[in-house]
Amino acid sequence: MSLEVGDTASLTKTITDADIRAFAELSGDDNPIHLDHEFAATTRFGRRIAHGMLAALMISTVLGTKLPGIGTVYLSQNSQFMAPVYPGDTVTARVTVVKIRADKPIVTLETICENQNGEVLIKGEAVVLAPWQVG
Amino acid sequence: MSLEVGDTASLTKTITDADIRAFAELSGDDNPIHLDHEFAATTRFGRRIAHGMLAALMISTVLGTKLPGIGTVYLSQNSQFMAPVYPGDTVTARVTVVKIRADKPIVTLETICENQNGEVLIKGEAVVLAPWQVG
Repeated sequence: MSLEVGDTASLTKTITDADIRAFAELSGDDNPIHLDHEFAATTRFGRRIAHGMLAALMISTVLGTKLPGIGTVYLSQNSQFMAPVYPGDTVTARVTVVKIRADKPIVTLETICENQNGEVLIKGEAVVLAPWQVG
Repeated sequence: MSLEVGDTASLTKTITDADIRAFAELSGDDNPIHLDHEFAATTRFGRRIAHGMLAALMISTVLGTKLPGIGTVYLSQNSQFMAPVYPGDTVTARVTVVKIRADKPIVTLETICENQNGEVLIKGEAVVLAPWQVG
């Protein structure tokens, strides 16, 4: 397997109400800003928003299934949450290789989530151990 | 609501096989290292491991439901994945306030996940907008 700086992969998904409820059940995060229309209407967002981590985990999915792919081990992830995800938004998570260590299969990738309007929702950087030997 | 440096909150949960399968379905991350006994036996871990993000999202849950609590907005999260989570492990996610800005309700918290043996699984830092006004 070979990998080069600039290689990129992405995943696009529409965040449904069912996703938000499944995430709430799995995580135990039942914050009403995500689940309760009336409460959410009183917040700065004016309506329900998805859990930020629901978009963030799409990054993990791209890394583990596409680039570098199966067998990838997460070493670190930094994420800045730039804008909220609303139910019904279509989110694209994109990872791009920015650095590959010469001595070990340790790869740094830029990680971005955008919505259907091209607005950046999450930006960050991942470092992973890729599933192959170097050299 | 008042908050002080040193305030802490935690959440403990046993990561079940059902959690791993629910996470795989929600995220689309069907990497066999998480789901397939025979494949996982061939990896460096020797057996199935949970998705790293499955423990990481417990941090998000503590922030959004306990400290600072309901209405909290995520600004950033850095996570270093130190050790794998195995199915059946009991994970404690703990957040501790390390900095509170004087002028805005922006709070920095140390974020840690440990297993039942006290081994650190994930360590990192969160910055959040707390759901109240300062001063």
